[in-house]
Amino acid sequence: MTEDRPRSHGRLSITASLRPRELMAGNDRLRGAWVARIITLFPEAFPGTLGLSLTGRALKHGLWQLQTIHLRDFGIGKHRNVDDTPAGGGAGMVLRPDVVGAALDQAAIGTPPDRARWPVVYLSPRGRVFDQAMARRWAAAEGITILCGRFEGVDQRVLDHHAVEEVSLGDFVLTGGEIAAQAMIDATVRLLPGVLGNAESTRDESHSAGLLEHPQYTRPAVWEGHEIPPVLMSGHHGEIAEWRRAQSEALTRERRPDLWERYLRKRDGKGG
Amino acid sequence: MTEDRPRSHGRLSITASLRPRELMAGNDRLRGAWVARIITLFPEAFPGTLGLSLTGRALKHGLWQLQTIHLRDFGIGKHRNVDDTPAGGGAGMVLRPDVVGAALDQAAIGTPPDRARWPVVYLSPRGRVFDQAMARRWAAAEGITILCGRFEGVDQRVLDHHAVEEVSLGDFVLTGGEIAAQAMIDATVRLLPGVLGNAESTRDESHSAGLLEHPQYTRPAVWEGHEIPPVLMSGHHGEIAEWRRAQSEALTRERRPDLWERYLRKRDGKGG
Repeated sequence: MTEDRPRSHGRLSITASLRPRELMAGNDRLRGAWVARIITLFPEAFPGTLGLSLTGRALKHGLWQLQTIHLRDFGIGKHRNVDDTPAGGGAGMVLRPDVVGAALDQAAIGTPPDRARWPVVYLSPRGRVFDQAMARRWAAAEGITILCGRFEGVDQRVLDHHAVEEVSLGDFVLTGGEIAAQAMIDATVRLLPGVLGNAESTRDESHSAGLLEHPQYTRPAVWEGHEIPPVLMSGHHGEIAEWRRAQSEALTRERRPDLWERYLRKRDGKGG
Repeated sequence: MTEDRPRSHGRLSITASLRPRELMAGNDRLRGAWVARIITLFPEAFPGTLGLSLTGRALKHGLWQLQTIHLRDFGIGKHRNVDDTPAGGGAGMVLRPDVVGAALDQAAIGTPPDRARWPVVYLSPRGRVFDQAMARRWAAAEGITILCGRFEGVDQRVLDHHAVEEVSLGDFVLTGGEIAAQAMIDATVRLLPGVLGNAESTRDESHSAGLLEHPQYTRPAVWEGHEIPPVLMSGHHGEIAEWRRAQSEALTRERRPDLWERYLRKRDGKGG
């Protein structure tokens, strides 16, 4: 099942499934580069879209590293089974604790045991919902290990034993954790030093204020009979800023009452 | 910029960028198959992970279709520019309304204008947050058009003019819409008839009850000194169901107060 052919995910050639030998030799990590180590039944899903555009360029330049560990390698018996039926009955299958435990043991080689320095995450709809604060926390770590499930749940004992953090991409069900992992890695990698250009970094700050972004306009000045709002063409920086803030507030109030309430509490707390 | 080499995303060979001729001939759609039509600067990001496992098998069997439209094809001038600086100043770039409008016009060929039958979506952190109800709504449509941005915003006029729905994957910032599109398509496609096996379908129902799923266990009975909770080994179906419900409730209350409150309101509303 293992692809022994090395896959290049950046400056280093790594194998789709890291071997303990390579991990222990410590030659699998670029000095200082943030590492995403993914345990998956579909290593061929990576780097996927992460190999393109900004995240792909950063991967190529060694600003971060991607390493896949094939869960199937730890499967049991001739068919390398990774799952079994749920204790107590029910539909679906559950990933075995011995199989997942062995994969987590291998993923832990060369990583700090402190979960703040190296979070170990299982992607599941039962988890805390991923957000920008979590992306910032992960970007401040040295790397992360992500366990991707497929259809199945995971035996709870192995999650407890390895202090695995359960994280959800949102309130919807996916066929597997691979796309969710890519979304979270994308959100995290773009926060790493040197990944974003200055222009993009600046844009981010407006989002961090807790309001949705105001509408944007660009050339042509008139399109299909619709003009750009005159205030934006006025050159009055104060009025432009005021208009944008009002638009952001109105949009946030209308679309995201939850963010709006948080924003008000924060603003009034500061003002008082 | 266009790849004229046909890319096979299922039963039909389609081009990375659909031509009006092909769209109008109507030979680009399998009868009755749900269609995801993606406008993107990175058509090579697709099908990506959607080409694997359940969604990939369903794609191969013609249960759904994936079509990419390369935004660059509608770019302006020798360099096929798609964006320009924001009116009123500021960082970042904004996708031009004429460029995006032309791509949306092409994507609309052969689709019903009723947005309930064919949603047209732009992925942005300003949008309503994607959830399972939205996935169900999209799965009930005939298809969907998704516009993926990259770093930039989009001129508001083209979003208004084309009645484009803004949708967000969650409260975090991505480098582009492509991974978000894949997550939403994955969540939607798995709800299409015939995509999931029976076992997986059944599992979904527990999530739909509005509670997080109870912990799962499987073989071996003892792992690293940890036993499976005895109730699950008891064979008492009533006690097992009771234990699982209590676990689900405790977990939801602890991890997701927002879901817990909604669950209580629904339960008490029904009970009263």
